Amino acid sequence: VIHAIQQMVVRGAPAIGVCAAYACCMAAQEAQGDTKKLNLLLDAIAQARPTAVNLRWAVERMRSIQNTTGTEGFVAEASRIQAEDINNCKAMGQYGQSLIPENATILTHCNAGALATAGYGTALGVIRAAHECGKNISVICNETRPFLQGARLSAWELHQDGIKTTVACDNSCALLMQKKMIQCCIVGADRIAANGDTANKIGTFGVAILAKHFHIPFYVAAPISTIDSTMPDGTHIPIEVRPQEEVRTILSQTIVPEGVAVYNYAFDVTDASLITAIITEVGVLYPPFTASIAHACQEKQ
Amino acid sequence: VIHAIQQMVVRGAPAIGVCAAYACCMAAQEAQGDTKKLNLLLDAIAQARPTAVNLRWAVERMRSIQNTTGTEGFVAEASRIQAEDINNCKAMGQYGQSLIPENATILTHCNAGALATAGYGTALGVIRAAHECGKNISVICNETRPFLQGARLSAWELHQDGIKTTVACDNSCALLMQKKMIQCCIVGADRIAANGDTANKIGTFGVAILAKHFHIPFYVAAPISTIDSTMPDGTHIPIEVRPQEEVRTILSQTIVPEGVAVYNYAFDVTDASLITAIITEVGVLYPPFTASIAHACQEKQ
Repeated sequence: VIHAIQQMVVRGAPAIGVCAAYACCMAAQEAQGDTKKLNLLLDAIAQARPTAVNLRWAVERMRSIQNTTGTEGFVAEASRIQAEDINNCKAMGQYGQSLIPENATILTHCNAGALATAGYGTALGVIRAAHECGKNISVICNETRPFLQGARLSAWELHQDGIKTTVACDNSCALLMQKKMIQCCIVGADRIAANGDTANKIGTFGVAILAKHFHIPFYVAAPISTIDSTMPDGTHIPIEVRPQEEVRTILSQTIVPEGVAVYNYAFDVTDASLITAIITEVGVLYPPFTASIAHACQEKQ
Repeated sequence: VIHAIQQMVVRGAPAIGVCAAYACCMAAQEAQGDTKKLNLLLDAIAQARPTAVNLRWAVERMRSIQNTTGTEGFVAEASRIQAEDINNCKAMGQYGQSLIPENATILTHCNAGALATAGYGTALGVIRAAHECGKNISVICNETRPFLQGARLSAWELHQDGIKTTVACDNSCALLMQKKMIQCCIVGADRIAANGDTANKIGTFGVAILAKHFHIPFYVAAPISTIDSTMPDGTHIPIEVRPQEEVRTILSQTIVPEGVAVYNYAFDVTDASLITAIITEVGVLYPPFTASIAHACQEKQ
């Protein structure tokens, strides 16, 4: 499972969390009651990837029950995490869809859909809910280099649901916004700091700056488990640097000349000041985010 | 030649201009003194692609000599256009390199190099000149989807010259700027309006907005032949829409699900207000651009 998370066979912060919870069940089975061994395995799962805090959150939630129950207790807790995740997505959808204007075209970046969660999706869940309410909407998916989650995953999901979907290269955002072809932006999140600074797939920060420039609302949709209250702001969120090969080759074909270096930062951090609202399962949070996030976390407990 | 220009076998505004000039020679040969036929052929060449004004500029310059000289006169004029283009690039390099700080990392988008001109390059010419002056510089090339001119052409050119070069996905700009990894941006141009609004490869406009956000200088390098004084501003510059297949497939492999639409605007227009200076063969132009561009055009005549 660690390998699958690292290789992005499973990706998307909430999906990684759910998957990690089930990995903890496998660890419990493997440890056979050896608490020291179990904790080491859980540590290894928690460290599979650095940026999405849902991973650590899920593992710590699983760890907290280890002394009171056996493997069955683990499986039950993982199932609860999975079920809660879908419910959270549905709740986000209900809260978030009210923000989507009739006839809107929504820009989304990367994939924060059913394929990034236990089902339904965070950002795409909001879009799905708006569509299910009968709103006439369409979506532009940034293709999202280097992994192309927008072109390959989000576009596929939305098209399956009969939502009008168009793929665009990441670099066409400014033009599309200038042409008034985008009415709002919705993205997921990998980690949200206590002040609202939001780590998400590389390119999100740029979209947010452009949205601000063009006075277009920019929404983040994420469960409370994505909030890391131990981080006062985004400056200390660890940004994963992934292998150069992911940029250097596309679908196994080389595009960068030999000898030339490559940057492959997997995430960036969007300043809270660029975010219009954060959509969670307990409601829509508005600035000042330090207060609204603290309140939402309290409510969740 | 028209086919080669349309298929982007030859691309880059100045290279298209030079290539079109030689195509006019072929047209003159084909027309064998039939002025009407020649003019029709020249019209077809001028209309091969809509955005880069150098194409029309080169054809009109060739057309202006048609009645006074034969095919030899055409070839001589095309050779002059070619030689002038290299000289222009060298002059831009000299003027522009003074703007590059020691130890700077320069971001460039698309390819405005030797492969986009008759040689040396516009934006890459400035970078080459700074390198030749002994400045310790490095370059980040945006890969430039969908055609990947940055990854495939600019990175190759700069690496050949021994300039430290790194390729990054287009969507990582905001992060790299936030991390203070970019000290200035230099791009080429396909058409510059009288007020300085600049059409260039899709994505340029977004880079310029991000540069403004992070207070990073944003330079355009282009010959006077790229200026279209008949356009008061950029709103009327025609933006070429290219085939969906260019985005839908990468190196012949499909990345977008069937049934999903694709946007493939080939250019965008950067507001003059986002441009720090325009580097030309007659000097560096500063705001207010309406005055400095008019003055430069006059000087060129």
